[in-house]
Amino acid sequence: MQPAPAWSVSRWFNADAAPTLETLRGRVVFLHAFQMLCPGCVQHAVPQSLKVAAAFADAELSVIGLHAVFEHHAVMGPDALQVYLHENRIRYPVAVDAYRDDDPTRHPLPLTMQAYAMQGTPTLMLIDRRGRLRRQQFGLVDDLRLGAEIATLLAEPA
Amino acid sequence: MQPAPAWSVSRWFNADAAPTLETLRGRVVFLHAFQMLCPGCVQHAVPQSLKVAAAFADAELSVIGLHAVFEHHAVMGPDALQVYLHENRIRYPVAVDAYRDDDPTRHPLPLTMQAYAMQGTPTLMLIDRRGRLRRQQFGLVDDLRLGAEIATLLAEPA
Amino acid sequence: MQPAPAWSVSRWFNADAAPTLETLRGRVVFLHAFQMLCPGCVQHAVPQSLKVAAAFADAELSVIGLHAVFEHHAVMGPDALQVYLHENRIRYPVAVDAYRDDDPTRHPLPLTMQAYAMQGTPTLMLIDRRGRLRRQQFGLVDDLRLGAEIATLLAEPA
Amino acid sequence: MQPAPAWSVSRWFNADAAPTLETLRGRVVFLHAFQMLCPGCVQHAVPQSLKVAAAFADAELSVIGLHAVFEHHAVMGPDALQVYLHENRIRYPVAVDAYRDDDPTRHPLPLTMQAYAMQGTPTLMLIDRRGRLRRQQFGLVDDLRLGAEIATLLAEPA
Repeated sequence: MQPAPAWSVSRWFNADAAPTLETLRGRVVFLHAFQMLCPGCVQHAVPQSLKVAAAFADAELSVIGLHAVFEHHAVMGPDALQVYLHENRIRYPVAVDAYRDDDPTRHPLPLTMQAYAMQGTPTLMLIDRRGRLRRQQFGLVDDLRLGAEIATLLAEPA
Repeated sequence: MQPAPAWSVSRWFNADAAPTLETLRGRVVFLHAFQMLCPGCVQHAVPQSLKVAAAFADAELSVIGLHAVFEHHAVMGPDALQVYLHENRIRYPVAVDAYRDDDPTRHPLPLTMQAYAMQGTPTLMLIDRRGRLRRQQFGLVDDLRLGAEIATLLAEPA
Repeated sequence: MQPAPAWSVSRWFNADAAPTLETLRGRVVFLHAFQMLCPGCVQHAVPQSLKVAAAFADAELSVIGLHAVFEHHAVMGPDALQVYLHENRIRYPVAVDAYRDDDPTRHPLPLTMQAYAMQGTPTLMLIDRRGRLRRQQFGLVDDLRLGAEIATLLAEPA
Repeated sequence: MQPAPAWSVSRWFNADAAPTLETLRGRVVFLHAFQMLCPGCVQHAVPQSLKVAAAFADAELSVIGLHAVFEHHAVMGPDALQVYLHENRIRYPVAVDAYRDDDPTRHPLPLTMQAYAMQGTPTLMLIDRRGRLRRQQFGLVDDLRLGAEIATLLAEPA
């Protein structure tokens, strides 16, 4: 099983100290990549992530959002994202996926998206207590199966 | 029954000629006010409006969106709205509710919102063939009742 | 447009006087055929019929159920139906579709089902104020379109 | 933690050999009590149980239905249940909760229902690999939490 690739983040919201895979070691991580103007994200994946955060509030699970913008950059910048998080009452940490500073062509995919070879948004990822990427799914996932997958990882020793 | 107040529009999308209550006379108008970052709009009211547009595609009904921004103006401008309409495949005309040019304080409510005394977003309005405001509802409306209300107005003579 | 075929009823529930197409003339009739052990009926069509009855409680609409049993007769008899109506709080009139008394073979389809050439259950039918069958649909119908169809018939003169 | 009470069964469906808590030892048991004419069971709990059976088809989970009839006995007998199971494509084992043979008053609650002190239907119970009752819930349970609870028990050693 492969270790989860490191995250490249240009800015964090809802986080005093920037979370990393190292600081989260020992916990299960529910990482969900989204774009604030992607209909499937807004209508399904983000509400599901909020539900996950509530259902596992007392568990050793960290919910992390990744704003993985690969289109329409001008209108999905950090200011817009901040409003989106506020309006949707998202209180868990959200990272803005980064671009290479020296990329004059502004490659269409941000760096974390590339590192995980994501196909689009929404994508959900489950990372186990030992930092390994155990599940990556583009599109929607059923609540019953998602609950089971999270609990299975939570039941593993750290 | 009161005539529907005129619309104050700073910009139209998906419209060659600006629709007005006068040019729409003879048709029933389903006008829905929304903000592109309002969760209730995005998750419920806009999908319902798309469904109305599809269900009544062959009827004498005009579906009109009104982007009634009263908060977070910086990130809900016309460029952002254009992306939102594209991503959600909204092809019916959408108006941007206007502010008074000479309003140095930028009053919190745009002009059409004020004229209709709307309480927030989403708000749906039904205007009959004679241009009268027959229904205004803040919040969500059930599909069964909405279908009935639209059909009742369509059945009235022009 | 054809007149709605007459109903053949072996027993009524929730009705003091047996409704007929003649006594209902002048009203719109929402007739829904179901079987109490048909999953699509129980999970979707019957809840929708209860919703129709509530939404149009003040309108000139009569909601009528037709228990059209064409299989498993032994366990969907009138006693079982009475419990079903009670448990689901169905208070509108429900007719038990009849078999010919002299039919030794017990033809697989009851008489009203035959007269309307229904393909199965659930089936919904809309009959206009003049007693004409305007719509017949096997399977599920969307709330928005159903509300519109009912209201269209209600708007016609008696 | 208490051991799950034994089941009192007058008849099994979909089972060659009668399952018992002893024969199921080592597996997690999802036991759901229902009545075939209880609306909450038919519309929510039974469809959810079918979903659980499909989602955990490859896991060491046994889904067991318990037809716990405490009202309207005449119309929810084994013949009616057999039709219900057939129409809903329920293929996992279903037990008919038993009454005491020598109970002339036909006590209103069948024996398994009494032993578990169930409050009504639907009720779901989760029994762990060691035969202990770990969860009992009257009413509806959310898919996300249910999936997590099942997976948590599956992760425990036998």
